[in-house]
This record gives sequence, C-alpha cells and structure tokens, in this order.
Amino acid sequence: MAKGNRPLVTLTTDFGTEDGNVGVMKGVILGINPDAHIVDVTHDIPPQSITAAAYLLRRAHEYFPRGTIHLVVVDPGVGSERRPIAVSTSRASFVAPDNGVLSYVLDHLDSVGDELHVVHLNDAAYWLPKVSNVFHGRDIFAPVAAHLSLGVPVDALGPPIDDPVRLPPPHLERHPGKVIGQVMHVDHFGNLLTNIPRSHLHSLGDAITTRVGQTEIRGLTATFAHGRTGEPIAYIDSSDHLAIAVVNGSARELLPCRMGERVEVAANHAMYRCDGEPCD
Amino acid sequence: MAKGNRPLVTLTTDFGTEDGNVGVMKGVILGINPDAHIVDVTHDIPPQSITAAAYLLRRAHEYFPRGTIHLVVVDPGVGSERRPIAVSTSRASFVAPDNGVLSYVLDHLDSVGDELHVVHLNDAAYWLPKVSNVFHGRDIFAPVAAHLSLGVPVDALGPPIDDPVRLPPPHLERHPGKVIGQVMHVDHFGNLLTNIPRSHLHSLGDAITTRVGQTEIRGLTATFAHGRTGEPIAYIDSSDHLAIAVVNGSARELLPCRMGERVEVAANHAMYRCDGEPCD
Amino acid sequence: MAKGNRPLVTLTTDFGTEDGNVGVMKGVILGINPDAHIVDVTHDIPPQSITAAAYLLRRAHEYFPRGTIHLVVVDPGVGSERRPIAVSTSRASFVAPDNGVLSYVLDHLDSVGDELHVVHLNDAAYWLPKVSNVFHGRDIFAPVAAHLSLGVPVDALGPPIDDPVRLPPPHLERHPGKVIGQVMHVDHFGNLLTNIPRSHLHSLGDAITTRVGQTEIRGLTATFAHGRTGEPIAYIDSSDHLAIAVVNGSARELLPCRMGERVEVAANHAMYRCDGEPCD
Repeated sequence: MAKGNRPLVTLTTDFGTEDGNVGVMKGVILGINPDAHIVDVTHDIPPQSITAAAYLLRRAHEYFPRGTIHLVVVDPGVGSERRPIAVSTSRASFVAPDNGVLSYVLDHLDSVGDELHVVHLNDAAYWLPKVSNVFHGRDIFAPVAAHLSLGVPVDALGPPIDDPVRLPPPHLERHPGKVIGQVMHVDHFGNLLTNIPRSHLHSLGDAITTRVGQTEIRGLTATFAHGRTGEPIAYIDSSDHLAIAVVNGSARELLPCRMGERVEVAANHAMYRCDGEPCD
Repeated sequence: MAKGNRPLVTLTTDFGTEDGNVGVMKGVILGINPDAHIVDVTHDIPPQSITAAAYLLRRAHEYFPRGTIHLVVVDPGVGSERRPIAVSTSRASFVAPDNGVLSYVLDHLDSVGDELHVVHLNDAAYWLPKVSNVFHGRDIFAPVAAHLSLGVPVDALGPPIDDPVRLPPPHLERHPGKVIGQVMHVDHFGNLLTNIPRSHLHSLGDAITTRVGQTEIRGLTATFAHGRTGEPIAYIDSSDHLAIAVVNGSARELLPCRMGERVEVAANHAMYRCDGEPCD
Repeated sequence: MAKGNRPLVTLTTDFGTEDGNVGVMKGVILGINPDAHIVDVTHDIPPQSITAAAYLLRRAHEYFPRGTIHLVVVDPGVGSERRPIAVSTSRASFVAPDNGVLSYVLDHLDSVGDELHVVHLNDAAYWLPKVSNVFHGRDIFAPVAAHLSLGVPVDALGPPIDDPVRLPPPHLERHPGKVIGQVMHVDHFGNLLTNIPRSHLHSLGDAITTRVGQTEIRGLTATFAHGRTGEPIAYIDSSDHLAIAVVNGSARELLPCRMGERVEVAANHAMYRCDGEPCD
C-alpha cells in the first residue's frame, strides 16, 4: 500500500475516453476506497496492443512513488480462460490480465533483483458482485486495485503462481561495431523511440551512423534545438534510449517507418571497413 | 452531499479538452470547495448530442458511490430561455441544462421508484458573479455543483418544477419471436451498442438471428475471444444489452451503420415459420 | 503556496496523452508532495505552439483559486540555452520555459498592477537528480512546481531576473468607426476566437459588420440559439471578446480561415459613408 493517506492508483488502458468507461472504473475504485488518488497514465494505447502498453508502462512506472498500484487493462482475451493477476514487489503493485502486458516491467524488476509475488486473482470476494464477460476492468481489476489500496495484502486475493505470461524481449543484437534494435513506439510528436540503450552505443565510439528504412543519420544530436528544421536526427530520449526525430517535423510522416521497424547503429569506422562487400 | 470528506463531482461534456474549458470548470469548483473530488466521465460527447450524453450518463451513473454529484453540460441552447436545473434523489444529484440530457437517468430512477426533486436553478447567489451568454458550464453549473458538494440542499438553489424536458424513449418493440431496437452508441472499439436488454432475448429461445443493415448474425457469442478474426458477432455488452462487434476489427468500419440504425433480433424458428411470405 | 491542505497545481502542455508523459509528470509531483491537487488545463496545445499556450493560459488562469501553481510546458528549445523560469505574484505562481509562453498572462498581471517576481531556475537541488536533454517537464518543471506546492519560496529556486521573454502583443488597431484584430484560437466547436475586446466595440455603436476572409456578418448575436442553422454569426465569447461561429456547424470548416487571420469590425455608418470609394 502506498504511504500516507492517499494511496496512488494509476490507470493504463486502451479504452479511450469517449465512452465514459474510464470514469466508471474510477467510480468503482472510489466507491471502495474514497481516499484513493487516481492518476491516468494513458487511455490511448492502440486498441488491443499489449506490446505498446507493456512498453509505456515500463517507461512510466519508475517515476511514481513507492507503493503505487498500477492498474493496466489491455485485454483482448477478456472473458476467456486468460487469468487475471496481481503482482506485488517491494516497490509497487500491478493488477492486469495475464497476457504479457506486464512483461517489460517484470523483466526490469527481475534485472534489478526485486522479488516478485504473483497471484491468480480468483477470489470473487474482491470483485463487483456481478461480473460481465466483456468489462473486467470495471468488474474485477478496478475493485481489486481498490482493495489493494485499502491495504489488503496481495496474497489474500488468490493463490500464488510462477508462470505469468511473458512477451519475448524486443529484438536487440550487439556486434563489434554495430547494434541492431527496433522501433518500440512512435510518440505524440512523431518521434521514433527504439530499444537501443545509450550504454550500447558507447563501444561504437563517437562517430556513428543510424539507419532506419532508407534513411541514414550521421552522429547524435544533443537536443532538437541543435538540429535544422526538416533534418532527421538521432538523439537520446528521456528514457536513455536511441530515438529518431525530424526537427520541427514528424519522423512518422517523413520517414517510411512503423512499429517494430529495424534500426541499425554502426560505428563509422566499421562501415568504412566493409566497403565493397555486403555489410550485414 | 457525498459521504466522507471529499464529495465526488463527475463531469460529462461535449467540450473536448483542447480549449482548457474543462480545466476552468474544475478551477471554479475547487475555488468554491477545495475538497471536491472531481472525476471526468467524458468530454468527448459528439458536439451538441444530447442523446449521446443521456445514454452514456445512464450507463455510468450507477457505478459511482451514493451521494455523487453529476454535472452534465451539453448545452446547444445556452443563453436562451432553456432552464438550468438540478435534480436530487436518494442516490445522487444531477446538475444540467433542461434539454433532456438527464432523460434516460431520470427514466431509470423513476423505474426503480426513486423519488426525484427537480428545481429550476434561478438563484444567482450560487453562480459566478458574472454570467456569460455562452458558457453556463463555468458560470452557473460548476458553481452550483460546488455548492451542492458543500452541503447546500437542492431546495435552496431554486423553486421546484415538475416538468423537466424528457426525450422520447428510444425505439424498442417486442413481438412474439422478435425484438426490434436501435443502435444507441458506437464505442471506442467500433462496437455497436443497442437498447435491446438481455431480458428481452430470453423469450426468443437459444437460437436467434440479429440483423443490422445488410448483416445477419447467428447466435450470441460469449466473448470476443470466442469469435474468429473479422467475423461479426452479437454479444451481451457490459450494461446487459445486445451489442454487435467485428472480432479484432471495427463494426463501425465494416458494417454500414450509424447511430439510431434499426436492429432486429428474431428467434430462428420464427424466421423459418414465415418462409415464403414477407416476415415483417 | 495555495491555501489549505491541498495546493492546486495545473498542467498545460503540448504532450498529448498517448505517451504517458503527463502521467509521469504527475507521478514526479506526487512523489515530492503527495498532497498536491493536480488539474489538467489541456495537453492538446498544437505541438510547439507557444502562442496557443500563452493564449489559453491567459483565458484560464483567472478562474483558479488564489495560490494556484500553473505549470506550462511547451518547450521547443528544451535542452538548449533557453532558461527555465518561475514567476510569483500575489495571485498565483507559474513555472515554464522562458520562451514567451507566459507572455499574455504576465501582460495581464502587469495591466492590473500585480507585482511579478521572476527567477531563473538554476538550483538543481529542486530538480530530479538526473536531467535528460529532452524532457525538462519531468526533470525540472514538475519537481519545481511540487516544491513550490510544499511552500518553498520562489526566491529559493534561483536568482531574480527582469528580462523574461515576451511575445509581441497580438495585432489590434482602433480607428474611428473600425477595429482590426486577429483570430487567436479555433476552439473545439470550430468557433473563431479573436483578440477584439467587447469594450472596443462600444464606440462603434449598435450597427456593426464583422469581416473575416470573404465573409461579412451583420450585427452581434446574443447566443447560438438565436441564430439560424448554417448561418455565420458574430458573438461575444466567454472571455468577453468577439468571436465568430456557424450556428450548428463549424466556422473552421465553412469559412476559409486560420490562426492569425485578420478580423475587422466596422460601424455600419462608417461603411456607408465610404460607398463609392475604397474603404481601407
């Protein structure tokens, strides 16, 4: 449970806001715990994109205070046999369908040695009395998050499990003089965010070239203000990964590119070394 | 007034969020009652669609705790002679223009025997000192909701009236072997939500066919996960009414359909019975 | 600092909501001050439009209670030499990049005689420990706003400056029988909001004509309900300035118009007086 009187509950969904369903989930939470402090991460996950939600939650979760309860509902399998789960760690709790949407967060928590307690939410005492087939966000996940925010321990919500669904990690290869990754997200400004960490670029030296689709970009640019309008630049994004922008424009529109697109960064000396023969 | 220290006030408007007007309404409410707990239902009602707001509020209101104050501003007649009203019931309060936007909620509260106290908001003591012709959401409705959240009784806000505007109920016909209704809302995922309650389907037996436009759908599908990608299905939505989806797709895009479109559900035996002669 | 236990912090950005970055800023604020009460003004400022943000903040700020902290992040120069600043007045505080985004608010506060204390935010003790080049909203502005909400005086955050960047005021000319201004904002309903104050229209008398692009509109209409569907009307908007609408339609779509477009209002007698010769 979050410290203080007003435990934080965040919401991440693909519901959009136009149907009032996000408001309804908040009504359910506040009916159970009037002191819950609810914060929207986003409700604009592309419909049913488990990967997109997993990526954005991984980026966001570290910036919330210890004890925050993260409720994530991107749930194409709602009403089927897929399990509802909750995960408790020393840092935060998570409530979600067991479809991989927590994968990148759990991978991260594993990597920093945080211990994960995962339970199968099967105790209907913590749900709304009536559960529809198509809106477990309202009927199961929101009530469970509200009960967690009241201090109910995660172990009370269902039996432990050790096999939550995990997505395969995004494609990332390191070679001498080269790193290959992929576009993970196209943001509001049309920037292409990749899974290539800044730390992987160090071994490539100062002179690098980034290639995405037909576009080649020399070097890294420190900030948007250091580029020329209309110029594609590579930069380090706010989560310390390589990203690609078009200055005062939109890389989404100007570069032919999509989610998952291959991105390659090579040391310039390595590129020169293979002149005259296939490089990959 | 809501129980506890932080009375809930919900907002439902067609203002969108880009102009800051929703933020301004919240500033006005919190200037009068800093302890109000404001929750957005939606601000994406189609511009001036009283019916859409009435429908979404009807779906949402039951999920908020007792004592919630619902502020609804879809107000094409702002500044004209249309009255501002407030409604108080044992369960919740409502503040809105008197244009029918509360109709489906009031019909529902009538049907469950809740007593309605309706007043004409004409006491300017509970408004902002200056009232514009075009933004009563800010100048009248938000301040009134804030005063209600402070515990001001609805009777203090203006004289009682017994003739609030009511929309005609949506088209719904029951025949032996057949129910006819209409599309009430197209949701974020492109699903078509109808006004045909699950209870009306029982008398049709297990084998039914749903027709909307040129599309015929056999049977009911329990969840999206039980259908095949691209297949139109009929299902029971989260408010216990018939709905139509395209699995992993959008019924809005794949079926020629609009708000108000006729939807017919027939028992298959009834359809077979009338082979060779006009069925309707 | 805001009065009471829950100081108000408003957010105005061009971040959109789909990337979760607004949620992250709220996580940062609440990690520093769990009692902060955060209200969104809007996150839909057109990307990098400093003028649009300056205009909407000017319209909105007066409706928030005394002591509110307004956080504004439209920041094309992020990571460059542009300064982060905070402004404190008797009425409110503001935290923003020093790029003119506070201009119209500061012009207004100057005009009413409010004293402005402006500081250059250069004390990293009030920032996140690690500052990225591209997301000062999260790393500098949100933490500073949170510390202000805890009662840290603005003077503690950095040295005073007296030269914050100011945008030139929007174009506005008064002539005998004529006022010339411009379109400042096109709102959610497609209405064109101008910078021509109602007070400037008084000297023109009751019979006026408004011209924008090829459209001429006679007179002022009190409310939308007093116009005929499809008719362009001029009216006084909720911030007491001239605006142009198409009744039950969208002026954005029906009139050829854009932000900054010239708008002219003339007394009809003045127009008649110049029949037969060029009027401008």
